[in-house]
Amino acid sequence: MFHAVIPAGGSGTRLWPLSRSSHPKFLHDLTGADRSLLQATVERLAPLADAAHTYVVTGTSHAVPVARQLPTVPDGNLLVEPSPRDSCAAIALAAAVIAERDPEGVMGSFHSDHLIPDADSFVATVRAAAKLAEDGYLMTIGMVPTYPETGYGYLRCGDDLDGGKVLREFREKPDAETAERYIAEGYLWNSGLFVWRVAVFLGELERQQPELHGIIREIAAAWDTPHREEVQGRLWPTLPKISVDHAVMEGAAAAGKVAVVPGSFSWNDVGDWHTLAEVLETDVNGNVVIGDGDVLAIDTTDTVVVPRGGRLIATVGVHDLVVVDTEDAVLVCPRSRAQDVKKLVDVLKQRGDTKRV
Amino acid sequence: MFHAVIPAGGSGTRLWPLSRSSHPKFLHDLTGADRSLLQATVERLAPLADAAHTYVVTGTSHAVPVARQLPTVPDGNLLVEPSPRDSCAAIALAAAVIAERDPEGVMGSFHSDHLIPDADSFVATVRAAAKLAEDGYLMTIGMVPTYPETGYGYLRCGDDLDGGKVLREFREKPDAETAERYIAEGYLWNSGLFVWRVAVFLGELERQQPELHGIIREIAAAWDTPHREEVQGRLWPTLPKISVDHAVMEGAAAAGKVAVVPGSFSWNDVGDWHTLAEVLETDVNGNVVIGDGDVLAIDTTDTVVVPRGGRLIATVGVHDLVVVDTEDAVLVCPRSRAQDVKKLVDVLKQRGDTKRV
Repeated sequence: MFHAVIPAGGSGTRLWPLSRSSHPKFLHDLTGADRSLLQATVERLAPLADAAHTYVVTGTSHAVPVARQLPTVPDGNLLVEPSPRDSCAAIALAAAVIAERDPEGVMGSFHSDHLIPDADSFVATVRAAAKLAEDGYLMTIGMVPTYPETGYGYLRCGDDLDGGKVLREFREKPDAETAERYIAEGYLWNSGLFVWRVAVFLGELERQQPELHGIIREIAAAWDTPHREEVQGRLWPTLPKISVDHAVMEGAAAAGKVAVVPGSFSWNDVGDWHTLAEVLETDVNGNVVIGDGDVLAIDTTDTVVVPRGGRLIATVGVHDLVVVDTEDAVLVCPRSRAQDVKKLVDVLKQRGDTKRV
Repeated sequence: MFHAVIPAGGSGTRLWPLSRSSHPKFLHDLTGADRSLLQATVERLAPLADAAHTYVVTGTSHAVPVARQLPTVPDGNLLVEPSPRDSCAAIALAAAVIAERDPEGVMGSFHSDHLIPDADSFVATVRAAAKLAEDGYLMTIGMVPTYPETGYGYLRCGDDLDGGKVLREFREKPDAETAERYIAEGYLWNSGLFVWRVAVFLGELERQQPELHGIIREIAAAWDTPHREEVQGRLWPTLPKISVDHAVMEGAAAAGKVAVVPGSFSWNDVGDWHTLAEVLETDVNGNVVIGDGDVLAIDTTDTVVVPRGGRLIATVGVHDLVVVDTEDAVLVCPRSRAQDVKKLVDVLKQRGDTKRV
């Protein structure tokens, strides 16, 4: 069986003021599709895993909205972390709980807050990865690069497999020159999407992180019993904070146990308002309105307007701007500075403005 | 005695969304001085006329806020027009009511919504005008031009008087080339500020507009009697709509009855957000915040922020912009397009958005 795991964390500060730590981006409808990014992710995965085989790993502060947004996912598949312990703990918990229920199962781990318009191509790629996962590889999906992006990690591939390649090495985010070289040499973007047999992943985890593996297996063994809360509450705080990349994947790649399937579906990590708007439909003037609030735009082009405060947003003579209105905050910045919205949030944190961050 | 008359009308659409027809700019504090433009006007005139000698002419929809903003002005000095009949009716009504009470009185007519930072220089200029008004001239104040503005009318002056000049002609707003020539030839800007003996003005009104004069005198005679409402209600609608410039001043100038005193005080007609901000204090980055709402501006310069909606306004990487937040509308436009805010209001009017215009 295939099991879809969605770690749902992060606060999406660059999508402030809509996205807040109390209500991060995966809980929002950012496309006007009448569903949150999380709901869209579950829907996209439906051909691979029905609700009974869908898992979400999330923190205590988001468990309630996640539960309400995904009413068909069984209670026992919503894995609530008592505290953040980085991605290895989150993914290992899901793998171990699945292994208790379906020892032969294959799982994929998927971002809760990405946009992937071509769901068919995405599903076909995951299926190709699942096929190689059956053969015992820890699979990752390598996106075919379209330009020398410096904001992503890269994958250096090796020998061909049937439908993929062995992964030789993960590479950190490069500088511009290195990115050019990577592309020339056929490297792929690291998508952070993983597919594997849970038994294979847990075996690698045991080999590289025996302590973490032991704790997680103990928690998972108690998951479907009355002892879950007691065991998790006692053991979870003792888990080390480490990413799955550092804890497992890099070492597994060095041991020749990781493979890659290439993905050429378009995707968007919804990193900031500018990036988000690039994949949404524009009007004849290149403007994107995200939400169904009232907007009056005169002589306005290539502008992103997010009317979520119940007010009229009126612009005149405005170009390449981002304007976001919420109940208690208004953001104005050029699209070219959309990444710097994080700076505003940093200042609000310093100010102790807990309501608005 | 000197009487200060303040016609308070107009909606100030270019200061939308703060200024609205239901609450136009003269009722707003636009300088952070804790008083409205109307209140600042009355205060500026205090050395010339105390509250008992201050008159406001306004429409029915603004009578209540005007009365509340000016509690010391006597009830009988707040002249409420049953319907708008342009400036001749408004000013003539004030002149005629004053003439009933003080036949020898001198009055000045002043804008309700202008900023004049140097009140002393302003008062001295009005006093100089009042002196020539005693001699029987209809006085106007001619602003000494500082550049060839095409948005103002001009005054062509003639022979010298003691402290002023005879006015030869009013000139309409010129094109740029003509404006250059006007300045070279010593023309002054038409301020729209008038000073005269009420008897002289009413005499000219009678000569040029005998019918209007007759109606106004009849209303004024009833003003301080129990018949005011009945008489005004019956006669006001019959008044022609005509400006005081066309009805009286142009003809009076042709007859050599108008004179000018030059004014060199700085003034600002608060026409739009950009113009307003030019006379307000900036922070080190050239930003102007109008209001005491919460503003977070990172890497933001020469920007006008008007936080009046109770929300945080956050900007990053923004330059030369206007951002106005009110309870039900947000405006974003470049300072260079501040005049075009009127276009937004025009569209809202077409939409029938009576709440927001």
